[in-house]
Amino acid sequence: MDILFVGDVVGSMGREMIKEYLPKLKAFYKPHITIVNGENSAGGRGITESIYKQLLEAGANAVTLGNHSWDNKGIFDFIDQAKYLTRPANFPDAPGTGMVFLKINDLEAAVINLQGRTFMPPLDCPFKKAEELIKLAKARTNIIFVDFHAEATSEKQAMGWFLDGQVTAVVGTHTHVQTADERILPGGTAYLTDVGMTGPYDGILGMEKDPVLYRFRTSMPSRFEVPKTGRKQLSACYMQVSRETGKAKSIERIMINDDRPFFRD
Amino acid sequence: MDILFVGDVVGSMGREMIKEYLPKLKAFYKPHITIVNGENSAGGRGITESIYKQLLEAGANAVTLGNHSWDNKGIFDFIDQAKYLTRPANFPDAPGTGMVFLKINDLEAAVINLQGRTFMPPLDCPFKKAEELIKLAKARTNIIFVDFHAEATSEKQAMGWFLDGQVTAVVGTHTHVQTADERILPGGTAYLTDVGMTGPYDGILGMEKDPVLYRFRTSMPSRFEVPKTGRKQLSACYMQVSRETGKAKSIERIMINDDRPFFRD
Amino acid sequence: MDILFVGDVVGSMGREMIKEYLPKLKAFYKPHITIVNGENSAGGRGITESIYKQLLEAGANAVTLGNHSWDNKGIFDFIDQAKYLTRPANFPDAPGTGMVFLKINDLEAAVINLQGRTFMPPLDCPFKKAEELIKLAKARTNIIFVDFHAEATSEKQAMGWFLDGQVTAVVGTHTHVQTADERILPGGTAYLTDVGMTGPYDGILGMEKDPVLYRFRTSMPSRFEVPKTGRKQLSACYMQVSRETGKAKSIERIMINDDRPFFRD
Amino acid sequence: MDILFVGDVVGSMGREMIKEYLPKLKAFYKPHITIVNGENSAGGRGITESIYKQLLEAGANAVTLGNHSWDNKGIFDFIDQAKYLTRPANFPDAPGTGMVFLKINDLEAAVINLQGRTFMPPLDCPFKKAEELIKLAKARTNIIFVDFHAEATSEKQAMGWFLDGQVTAVVGTHTHVQTADERILPGGTAYLTDVGMTGPYDGILGMEKDPVLYRFRTSMPSRFEVPKTGRKQLSACYMQVSRETGKAKSIERIMINDDRPFFRD
Ligand SMILES: [Fe+2]
Ligand SMILES: [Fe+2]
Ligand SMILES: [Fe+2]
Ligand SMILES: [Fe+2]
Ligand SMILES: [Fe+2]
Ligand SMILES: [Fe+2]
Ligand SMILES: [Fe+2]
Ligand SMILES: [Fe+2]
Repeated sequence: MDILFVGDVVGSMGREMIKEYLPKLKAFYKPHITIVNGENSAGGRGITESIYKQLLEAGANAVTLGNHSWDNKGIFDFIDQAKYLTRPANFPDAPGTGMVFLKINDLEAAVINLQGRTFMPPLDCPFKKAEELIKLAKARTNIIFVDFHAEATSEKQAMGWFLDGQVTAVVGTHTHVQTADERILPGGTAYLTDVGMTGPYDGILGMEKDPVLYRFRTSMPSRFEVPKTGRKQLSACYMQVSRETGKAKSIERIMINDDRPFFRD
Repeated sequence: MDILFVGDVVGSMGREMIKEYLPKLKAFYKPHITIVNGENSAGGRGITESIYKQLLEAGANAVTLGNHSWDNKGIFDFIDQAKYLTRPANFPDAPGTGMVFLKINDLEAAVINLQGRTFMPPLDCPFKKAEELIKLAKARTNIIFVDFHAEATSEKQAMGWFLDGQVTAVVGTHTHVQTADERILPGGTAYLTDVGMTGPYDGILGMEKDPVLYRFRTSMPSRFEVPKTGRKQLSACYMQVSRETGKAKSIERIMINDDRPFFRD
Repeated sequence: MDILFVGDVVGSMGREMIKEYLPKLKAFYKPHITIVNGENSAGGRGITESIYKQLLEAGANAVTLGNHSWDNKGIFDFIDQAKYLTRPANFPDAPGTGMVFLKINDLEAAVINLQGRTFMPPLDCPFKKAEELIKLAKARTNIIFVDFHAEATSEKQAMGWFLDGQVTAVVGTHTHVQTADERILPGGTAYLTDVGMTGPYDGILGMEKDPVLYRFRTSMPSRFEVPKTGRKQLSACYMQVSRETGKAKSIERIMINDDRPFFRD
Repeated sequence: MDILFVGDVVGSMGREMIKEYLPKLKAFYKPHITIVNGENSAGGRGITESIYKQLLEAGANAVTLGNHSWDNKGIFDFIDQAKYLTRPANFPDAPGTGMVFLKINDLEAAVINLQGRTFMPPLDCPFKKAEELIKLAKARTNIIFVDFHAEATSEKQAMGWFLDGQVTAVVGTHTHVQTADERILPGGTAYLTDVGMTGPYDGILGMEKDPVLYRFRTSMPSRFEVPKTGRKQLSACYMQVSRETGKAKSIERIMINDDRPFFRD
């Protein structure tokens, strides 16, 4: 019972990587569940219904979001009908849901999305919300995947240790840079501070680099745009999971770009 | 002309890893320059003169610091005499220096320490300060190593692109989690968002995990302590550098812990 | 049914102002309830049991706190026995209480303490917590005083409008500077963004000014101390309240210092 | 040699207050210099050339700005030609200027605009920049007015004490709430933490209150708009200044709204 998770898809170049590599990754790893973070999939800001459907068609079983959930206003028209879409569960009063259940043959898995609060706007406590949702999920399944969308490494490691033994995996998103600390925590939970992003390889977090650099150097406003052309990357991780206990047996980082081509197909 | 850089040494467990593995790493990689970030080497908070000397004796040629530079008040007594110690150069008015030069046989190398401002306290602009120091350094050498001590992945990537082609390497510290995005940027600068920490393997950023978790869950004060016993890790990176141009030819991440033992000796 | 509220008492100079002027203010205004914010009353950091008792003896009927509640570790020994002491109610899991009831002859009044989240650490939502507590309080009384301990003027004005018509008064604390925007909102709630502090008149928010200035200019650490001698100030406000409806009829700012002596005794 | 300073003009209601009351205030107080903060004068976000000219025509001799300087993109077309417009001087690399000189008969006065860094984006140090500009200004005049656009009361009080005796006045803007702590500091500098805003009286910092409240309660995005109709306020201060020494002799707060009508004409 294995899981493939792909990090923040950014703009059209991110979607192109999904179209090209998700089938190859699925052919190679044969995951039972594939989850994609889509919070930046529409031009870097939010997601549209059509992109959500594209991601499912490309092979995702569930799509998670983050602080950019609401950037594309179209979200409000379809989120309540989108069965396999989660936004961070600890928004206190938002449309959509923070947990979805997936059926895989005779098995079920829960996908939970949470957002951090350190260096981010106020929200309900992600630790308390995690406890609540896991209690609900446990009534149905031991296979529980948590996408913790957060900035601070401290908050992410804290969530990993907090949920160790309770869930299958805690994998971070949001910083757009893959971390190298994948491990199975002592209680059997797979942990990775951040899975990284999918999209432009030569930008800054997926955005054109010049406007970002200009803002850092001058503190002047500048409009960040997603590049349309150029080199691309995909960031993901793959976890092997015990179908009986829901515990993770392994976690492997995946990074595909010009410097690290995907040779396995 | 190769460089070994070891990330934030945390407390006595971090120092133990230095004593045990720095000689092995030097024997294996044979770097010409070894640099260690020591901002947390004294009980997690700052550095003492005796620890600074221990790090040099263990094989470091230079020690860099960060936002914790001033935590141990002893720093004020020895920083101005410490020839191979750098604190972030963009403190506007601080003792010590932000750039040191190292002699290696007939070669010279500059080590620059800078601190970010995103999600961190106000300081002088690290980008402008980088320009100033690099201009000075270039008069003496093309081999320039930058430890950019910063929180935000955006600010770190921005610094990498800003200095690409100007310096040998931009390697980040501070988040205590190693990132997996090491690369040679198009201009020849080695880049890694964060090299990670050296010390306790089972804490939160090197601190005992329970007090950190307690604070996240309750927002109540709790004293963070560095554990004295338990499993340990070391995080580092190794760069091969052209002695003529100062450009990086390769960058390799190094991580040593129970899950990734060091087999190369 | 009138209320006197005195803002953040800072250190020994703040306590001296309480001892000298609280009796005079009570003699002049004849409030039925006197409330004092004591979060900085012990050397600028927290409160002790003996200081809490001093404040009651000097004429306070209730003492409120804020983000500095826990600075003096003695608090944990007496807060659960202190009947007239409130800490911010939206700490998710803290000793003590965020609402106390006061008996005044045949009347009862509720005192609620809440803390903001903008530019402050994560906590439970103060707006939601306000709603919960007001519902409880309304079962007993219409006279409800809210000390909203917060940094941002936006969050404080938002709380004022949110509770307008539901409570007697929303008065802010924490910035240590009295604002001049006292008013009765359309629904009958007295509002003041910040009542200001009580203590040193010539410091920075009640602290010695040189160390604060040093930190702003250098970003270097510096220990902030409360001065022991020098000119003093007291900041407060006085509200006239309908005993039937609990609505405020008036709110008057009070500021006592060398430039504005208290001539009314 | 007297100065009238009007705080952040917000949207059309703010401009209406300027048109109605600036002539009356000038007739009553007879200031030699009138300064208006216009950072929110164009629909709450920035300023246009036509509004800048309106403010001058209505009686302003200089217009200051703040963090919203660049919100209205038209600014880039006229700021370099606008002789009496200042943006915060400590932007490291921005068009326009941070200090303007005004001629009043045979006298000259300098108007300096600075922005804080606490709870605000990184900028050059406002304290260091203040020193530089005051040195330049002193070569021409002792009459120096500083609009310190900042969030934190600590940083504002620090600037007041830092410049005490060096300048005529340090008056804060940005929080949109007038503070009640006007005073002449011991060195002769007039000080007020924040002069407050000019515009809607029943909003939150001049914005429609419902969207602001919605965002605080839900952390969901909501578009803040300036109301077009409703009750209005004007916030200002008036300082009497020695023409010989440039020291302030007095500072008086001015607040005009439904609850505090202007009876002096
Ligand atoms: Fe993202
Ligand atoms: Fe994000
Ligand atoms: Fe560190
Ligand atoms: Fe650090
Ligand atoms: Fe306080
Ligand atoms: Fe406070
Ligand atoms: Fe403003
Ligand atoms: Fe502003």
